[in-house]
This record gives sequence, C-alpha cells and structure tokens, in this order.
Amino acid sequence: MIPDTVFSALSTVLEGRISRSKHDLEHHGRSETWFPLTLPDAVAYPQTTAEVSQMMKICHAHDIPVIGFGAGTSLEGQTLATEGGLVVDFSRMDRVLRINDADMDAVVQPGLTREALNLELRTTGLMFPVDPGANASLGGMAMTRASGTTAVRYGTMRDNVLGLEVVLADGTVIHTGTRARKSSAGYDLTALFVGSEGTLGLVTEMTLRLHGQPEAISAAVCSFAELGPAVEAVIATIQAGLPMARIEFLDTRSVEAVNLYSGSHFPLRPHLFVEFHGSEAAVAEQAALFGEIVRDFGGSDFDRATKAEDRSALWTMRHHAYWACLALRKGAKAVVTDICVPISRLAAAVEETAADIAASSIDGPILGHVGDGNFHAILLVDPEDAGEIAEAKRLAARMADRALAHGGTVTGEHGIGIGKKPLMEAEHGGGWAVMGQIKAALDPKNILNPGKLVR
Amino acid sequence: MIPDTVFSALSTVLEGRISRSKHDLEHHGRSETWFPLTLPDAVAYPQTTAEVSQMMKICHAHDIPVIGFGAGTSLEGQTLATEGGLVVDFSRMDRVLRINDADMDAVVQPGLTREALNLELRTTGLMFPVDPGANASLGGMAMTRASGTTAVRYGTMRDNVLGLEVVLADGTVIHTGTRARKSSAGYDLTALFVGSEGTLGLVTEMTLRLHGQPEAISAAVCSFAELGPAVEAVIATIQAGLPMARIEFLDTRSVEAVNLYSGSHFPLRPHLFVEFHGSEAAVAEQAALFGEIVRDFGGSDFDRATKAEDRSALWTMRHHAYWACLALRKGAKAVVTDICVPISRLAAAVEETAADIAASSIDGPILGHVGDGNFHAILLVDPEDAGEIAEAKRLAARMADRALAHGGTVTGEHGIGIGKKPLMEAEHGGGWAVMGQIKAALDPKNILNPGKLVR
Repeated sequence: MIPDTVFSALSTVLEGRISRSKHDLEHHGRSETWFPLTLPDAVAYPQTTAEVSQMMKICHAHDIPVIGFGAGTSLEGQTLATEGGLVVDFSRMDRVLRINDADMDAVVQPGLTREALNLELRTTGLMFPVDPGANASLGGMAMTRASGTTAVRYGTMRDNVLGLEVVLADGTVIHTGTRARKSSAGYDLTALFVGSEGTLGLVTEMTLRLHGQPEAISAAVCSFAELGPAVEAVIATIQAGLPMARIEFLDTRSVEAVNLYSGSHFPLRPHLFVEFHGSEAAVAEQAALFGEIVRDFGGSDFDRATKAEDRSALWTMRHHAYWACLALRKGAKAVVTDICVPISRLAAAVEETAADIAASSIDGPILGHVGDGNFHAILLVDPEDAGEIAEAKRLAARMADRALAHGGTVTGEHGIGIGKKPLMEAEHGGGWAVMGQIKAALDPKNILNPGKLVR
Repeated sequence: MIPDTVFSALSTVLEGRISRSKHDLEHHGRSETWFPLTLPDAVAYPQTTAEVSQMMKICHAHDIPVIGFGAGTSLEGQTLATEGGLVVDFSRMDRVLRINDADMDAVVQPGLTREALNLELRTTGLMFPVDPGANASLGGMAMTRASGTTAVRYGTMRDNVLGLEVVLADGTVIHTGTRARKSSAGYDLTALFVGSEGTLGLVTEMTLRLHGQPEAISAAVCSFAELGPAVEAVIATIQAGLPMARIEFLDTRSVEAVNLYSGSHFPLRPHLFVEFHGSEAAVAEQAALFGEIVRDFGGSDFDRATKAEDRSALWTMRHHAYWACLALRKGAKAVVTDICVPISRLAAAVEETAADIAASSIDGPILGHVGDGNFHAILLVDPEDAGEIAEAKRLAARMADRALAHGGTVTGEHGIGIGKKPLMEAEHGGGWAVMGQIKAALDPKNILNPGKLVR
C-alpha cells in the first residue's frame, strides 16, 4: 500500500503524472504469459531523470517497492508488482537524445522502442540490430539482457549497451561506461546492470552501439523431412563460420501455427528461416554455401527473398509465431521455455525436448534462435487448470535440467523474473548467493523490483 | 606480517609450496613500470582449486591480504603487495583442461599464458586472438580486462571469457557463466569478475571463446609525413567498416625507438602497422581498400608481408616497442598512459597529447591500438627523480582529463591497480562508490588485493 500522503508527495514530483485508475493498474498488472493479474498500487509516468530520482528518494524513505516498466513484453513476470508498490512506466521517456554517426552510437531514453529507434536511424545508414521479436522498449531489453533473431551476428544487449545512466535505490544518479569502444577502468557496472531486471536501479538513459546497414540483405526458407537434420544443418552452418545474420528453427507444429495464423502455406515440415547480410557478392556467396549445407542434410531447395517486402512478410510471420502458437488453442496461455546450449549439443537438446513433449499431454511447438543454441517450447495451458500448469512446469523444469546437463543455461534471453527463479540455484549454485549479496549491498531496503531474480 | 603459525598452516595445505626467500619476494615485488619494489610477506604456488580454497580460508580467518599473480606483466602495480600479505603465483596452474573444437571454446587454468594456449591450439584450426603484446597469463589478462592489437576485430577479454571458476574471500568456490553463447540468467558475474583485478576473488579456471584461424593473413606497414593524416586514415578505415584484424599507430619517436632496438630501418615518420584476416580474396580486397584510404591521406605505398616469418618479425618489433621506448634512455622507467576515446575524437586526442608532451621536459613516444581509439604515451622518467615522476604524472593526469572530455576512458586495457586509482572518481563519479559497495559486500574483510581499484 502507498499511503495517501506519499502518493500525494509523488504526485507533486510527477506533476500529477501518477495514477491509481483501474485501467492503469490492470494494464500494468498483466503478463504476456501465464502469470495471473497482479495489480500494483499506482503507476507513475516520469518524464525526466530528475523526476525519477526524486520519486526514488520518496519511495526509499517510505519503503515503497518500485518496478520499472517499458513496453510490458517480458515473459517471466518481470514487471509484476508481486509485493505491491509503484510501477514506473517509462513510455514518456522515449526520445533519441543524440545519434553519433561517426562513432556509430546513440544516446536514448529507456522507453524508446527498438522499432522507433530504427525508424529514426533509417536515413543514417546505421541500425540497431538486436531484435527480440516484440517491439520492446530498449530499457526493458537492456534489463532482461534480451537478444533474439540477430544475436548470432550482432550479439545481445550485453554486447550493444556501451553505457547507462541509472537511478539507484536511494535516488542517487550514476553513469556507467563511456563512449569509448573498450575500457578497463574498474568493475564493469554496465554489464552488471544489463540483465539485472530493475533489481539494482532504474535506467534513465542508455548509450547504444549501432551497426552499419548492410549493403545487401537476402532471406530464405528451407524445410527438412525430420527435425534432426534441420538442427544438424544449423550446427554445420555455425561450425563452418558462415556469418549468418539470422538462422531460425520452427518445428512442424510451429509451422502449422504460423500457416493458420498468417495464412501462409509452408509445407508441414521442420523449417529454417535464414537471412544473410553483407555486400551483394558476400550475400550471394553465403547463400550458395548455406545451400550446399542444406542439401548435404537433405533439406529442400530454397528461394531467396531479396525484395524488402518479401523479407518483411517473412520476419513478420516469424515475429508473430508466439501469438500464432497461442492461437492454436482458444483461451490458452503459455509457459514459455528458453534454454540455450553449446551448439554441439543443440540437436540432442532439441530432440530430447521434442520427445518429452510428445510423451506428455501438453501441446508445445518448438522454435528458436538456433544459431546461438537457443530455443523455446511454447507450452500451451488452460490458465484455469492448475494440473496443466503443473505439467507444463514439470516439462519446463526438465528442459532446464537438460540445458544444464549439456553445459548450457536455463534462459538464453527471457530472463528470470519470478518464472525462472526456482531454476537459479541449479544453474548458479553459490553464485546465486553472490548475486544476493550484491543486491543487498545496492538495495538494502529491497525496494527495487522485490521478489525477482534474487532469493 | 604473516605469523609463523599461519605460515606453517599454509605450508601444510600447499605441501611446502610457499616461500619467504629473498629471491621469491623480490621477483613478486617488482613492477614492469615505475612503482618501487614492494615485497610481499610470502609467495604461494598452488596447484589445485582445492588448495586455493583452503589457503583462502586460512587467510580469511587471520586477515592476511592475498594478491593474485600471473606472469607479472601488469603495468599499474596490480600485483604489488602494498599492504603486505601473501602473493599467490598461479604459474603451476597452467594447464589446458579441455578444448571443445565443435563449440570453439577451451577450459584452461589461469596461469597458462596466451602463447602457450595458442601453441596448444596450433593444429586445431582455432586460436585465442586476444594479444596484449606481453606473453601474459590468461588469468591476469581476464583480471585486467586486457585487450591489445587484435581487439578491433576479436574484442577484449570482456568478449572472450565465457565463464569462470572463482575462489571467494572466504574460500567458497563458485562458477560463473556457462558454455552456451548467451544467457540472461541473472547478474552477469563473469563480466563483474573480468576486470576486477583480484579484488573480488581468485580465478582458478576459465572458459574461453576461441576463433577460427583465418585462411589467409597479410600484414602491411605504411608511413605518413605528419601525425594528423596517419590518425585520420585510421578513423576513415574504421568508419568505412573495414574489418581490420590489427591497426597500430607508432609516432616518429616510437619508430626511432623500434629502429634502435630491433635494428629495423623504418623511415622516421609516423607509421601504421596493419593486419588483414580472412579468405585470400577478402584479404586482398581489404588490403586494396586500405591502400586507397592511405593514399587519400597522403600515406606511403606499402608492401604486404604475406609470409609468416615477415609478419612475425613485424609483430615482434611492435610487441617489443615498450622495451624499445624504455631503451631510449638508460635506466629509465615509464609512467605508462592508456587512454581510449571515441574514434571520431582520436585525432584531436593524439594531437593534443603530442603537443602537451612536446611542451614538457619529458620524452614520451606515442603508440597504440588506434582502431579502438586506444593509445599510450610512454613517459620516460628517472625512477630516482621525484620531480620527473611528478611531471610525468601531471602529463598523464592531463591525458586522462582529455580522455574524459572526449567521452572516453582513462584506461582502455591496462586497468587501475594503484597507478590509476586517483583517476577513478573523475571517470565514474558515484559509480566508484557503487564499486566500493560491491567490494565491501563480497570481501568485507578487505583481504583480496587491498588498496587496488576501489577506495
């Protein structure tokens, strides 16, 4: 609960941009996945770093939990106010502050979405390539260490955030990183905050690394008779060092979902969706080499989509795949899994997972960013059926065990939130306690996104 | 001081591999740069993680400072026992534990040097490219977040350490990271420990990312009439997106030093030493494009050294440049600077620095990894002359101010140790206090490399 006097102090700082309306609370209490509606006590809409700092000072003095919110596209309940408190919606801090063409970096506010940034960059010859599918806010992407379809070529948020402005638990404002391409000046605070899910501070400004728009882009689709050879072809592609810009896997059930949802007519077989970036010559060479590998593994011929609209249609289908999977069953919600394994173990991990799902009562399409060794099973459940949720969670837990047994991680890109917290001990052992020590040192009152990520 | 009873308990754990001999203390009390001899109380030579853990428990119980030591090539006094205590020399933990060809990673012990690892990798088609010049230990490189000549292409230790085994202050052993290529499972502890200079834990095992040996390698040297156009050529090269494997700048005084030291006959003009990696065709294309840029800036034609022995001779000269500079003045030691700025500010930063040195009484060749915006002035001083040291430090402080004014960092790759500690507040402001909080949380007794990096 936020006492009325505190609410009114916050309202003064925010010049009235704070709400307790049912609509606002419900909008910020929802999750994209299976977590139940969880209402915060209030929602704030700051416009400046100074406001965020003042707001934090008040919440710190009164022990009010504070939860950052970007576009609300996280999948593990990261933005849910499970202990009540104030959700801070950054949608009004969504400006591009500076684009430094010559140094290929940009300074932005956290509420800016990745699509809005790329729109702004269109005429500069530069782009921000990290693409988790959803039009997430860049602040949210940094906080979950997001990645997505292009990480195989351009890296994750870990690699593409150069610096941050952060408001700490007590309202102190700090700056991490610089615009230089490297530094060895002490602890890498930027890397510590990226992926911290709002538990160590609220990001109010970010310096992002940009990349040159490729001279040529070509996308392609191919299919395989079986899941095994499709994944083996990915492994061979990565091991050959082919600089794929995207290499996405969809199993037969995912393809079926996409066809139903997007009106496409892909054959009901496991598919790879790929993209090549480079000079005209490089793209042609990459496509030819990839074609040879696909043939070696018995895959279909593929047509290259070099026209922008065809590529766009393809990636829109891929980006809607999550919604397509959900639409397979009316009223379903999803327990989403996100394991990532060393590339040599990818085929085993995918096949074991497919067999486990097949042997269960759960419908679970499998798809993912296989160039990184990262894939998802979208486990469809009736959100009212505790038995189904329990079974899906058991499948998810076995996937996590499998990831660790293969030398991988329980989450490649979705983060921990509340959904994956039970898996942290198994992945990190004593390292999880170290995370807790860092959390306690930086937020001794435990007001920053309490209940998430750490014990 | 280490009490005799504690020494003898440590000796039991280490089966006698602990020494207080003058030779051992002096060897571990020396610095590569201007810091005075600083003797530890004892030197330990552990062979296993279990020994390191047992040793830490004893030191923790008795408040004995513990300082990690690899090859002793750090430049900011990182390994000096400024508060006494035990130096832990990792030279007997120098094995390659596993090479995973298919996943392009290797698990190694921290005392292994980068050259020894690459020797081991020779026949695998893989390499570990991070190259700070000195044959440093990989543990030491991780702890200073080292980089060097190849970072422009392959990244720094930040990008090439996938995971760590760390012994904490109380002897607890934790594991960070996985063998997967990405993860969003909580705080990035690997990134926190990389660059922590032994102040948060002792690394006992590391998982490193490997890269494919390029099909073709070609090196080249070119010179310019003036410093300005040489640096402008670098900026144009980076902004053109040319994937240089190395691009090194040497000013006229550095070239003079190299000629005197290595018997070479480079013209006394500012030089660029470069290297291209890729397929035969790609290397030829890169060299041609680079040649055009060099001509645009009035540089000399260059001969490509495609033969391995010619390249090797070239990079040996570059790697010996620090010693070559020291040899310019008999008995001199160096105050080494290491600023790194956004590439668009590189020419200004180098020219301002050159002018500042020229106006001083100090001899200071300038050279560096300019593709990253990183360069060094080697400020030569008589180690007995406090006035000279003070003047060199004033020059270094002005370089640091300049780096920050240009949006850069006071140290691109050498780290903080004791030498750059006075610059931390200016670079990080409140962020330095956050580093101190993390240090206090993980090492409340302040026994891990006390006096370094944090306040």
